[in-house]
Amino acid sequence: MRQRNKPWADDFLKDNDQLVIPNAMDHKGKWQSVFKNDYPIHVEIGTGKGQFLAGMAKQHPDINFIGIEVAKSIIVSAAEKVMDSEVENLLLLNEDAADLREMFAENEIETIYLNFSDPWPKSRHEKRRLTYHTFLEQYKEVLDTKGKVIFKTDNRGLFEYSLVSFNEFGMKLEEVSLDLHAMDDPLNVMTEYEEKFAAKGQVIYRSRASF
Amino acid sequence: MRQRNKPWADDFLKDNDQLVIPNAMDHKGKWQSVFKNDYPIHVEIGTGKGQFLAGMAKQHPDINFIGIEVAKSIIVSAAEKVMDSEVENLLLLNEDAADLREMFAENEIETIYLNFSDPWPKSRHEKRRLTYHTFLEQYKEVLDTKGKVIFKTDNRGLFEYSLVSFNEFGMKLEEVSLDLHAMDDPLNVMTEYEEKFAAKGQVIYRSRASF
Repeated sequence: MRQRNKPWADDFLKDNDQLVIPNAMDHKGKWQSVFKNDYPIHVEIGTGKGQFLAGMAKQHPDINFIGIEVAKSIIVSAAEKVMDSEVENLLLLNEDAADLREMFAENEIETIYLNFSDPWPKSRHEKRRLTYHTFLEQYKEVLDTKGKVIFKTDNRGLFEYSLVSFNEFGMKLEEVSLDLHAMDDPLNVMTEYEEKFAAKGQVIYRSRASF
Repeated sequence: MRQRNKPWADDFLKDNDQLVIPNAMDHKGKWQSVFKNDYPIHVEIGTGKGQFLAGMAKQHPDINFIGIEVAKSIIVSAAEKVMDSEVENLLLLNEDAADLREMFAENEIETIYLNFSDPWPKSRHEKRRLTYHTFLEQYKEVLDTKGKVIFKTDNRGLFEYSLVSFNEFGMKLEEVSLDLHAMDDPLNVMTEYEEKFAAKGQVIYRSRASF
């Protein structure tokens, strides 16, 4: 994603610390109390500009959504999107997914979403892929026992890699779709990327897997 | 596959019983002695008109290939193809894949190929799909411990189903290709169907998995 330099981003985030929560580690194990309810927690890793999570939050008012995005200039756009959409059940964290276990306690999350994650196509960057086994270990720990990882991508290489990685890790593949939009799932919420790709007729892959 | 009525097929098969072996069950556990060598055995289930296996046999003279095809009128075409290709390391069986364990001993096979198998798209026909768990049980028994199932199809629904089925059965997915011809694998031997589909630019899926 193209990142614009936004020198005012720090001020913006400070002014909106009820939406983009600072010091996420302080709330580990206590996210439901931040939301002031006992709804399940769903987390998107790499929230980008927030269209998916804002749409999901509107569609599922009885779920608490948390979007993690490491890029400050991008999470600002996500925050603006969330404010426009006026949903209450969505928080954002400007954090690195590699620190997931510092932000969430064991079993604290019901579902993790990975949407159009960076494919890191070079072999030497395999460790950075969000479906590499070190990430799966983290997801396993913070997800509850029935927790799911729902993964969407248009990147063939990353999807091929990820199916093998899930399987190798011993995950249970519950659903594989090799052309999501051919299924016409009325509950599918599209990301910004997905809308563009779908408009061009490109295939979108999706898997749902558990540990 | 369209089947033509071939009233002469019985005579043809009788005349060619060195190629289309009758009474396959008699050779269970002893296929290498039928080939008169100790090369590994690779089996294609649903050989159709034989183009894939004839090509493979030419490419790999140190492997013994066996093609199983239940339709008599089709295996006749495969036999003609094999005779034209003049390969020695290929035999055909006019048998039902459901009887695999009667034809092969435990660990007798190194690789099983499934190519463009009937997708049986209706749920009530799930049991007939060659990647349904009852078939996987058979493959597991007749394959040696490092044995592979190599599966190609253009059918999206069948491939989605099969990935989930392999995973559910505890198989190890070693490779998944979601666009085989984009990889440009110089060793890929195409079936008759595959040639047609590829010419139209349609996607071919392939997986390699072991038990």
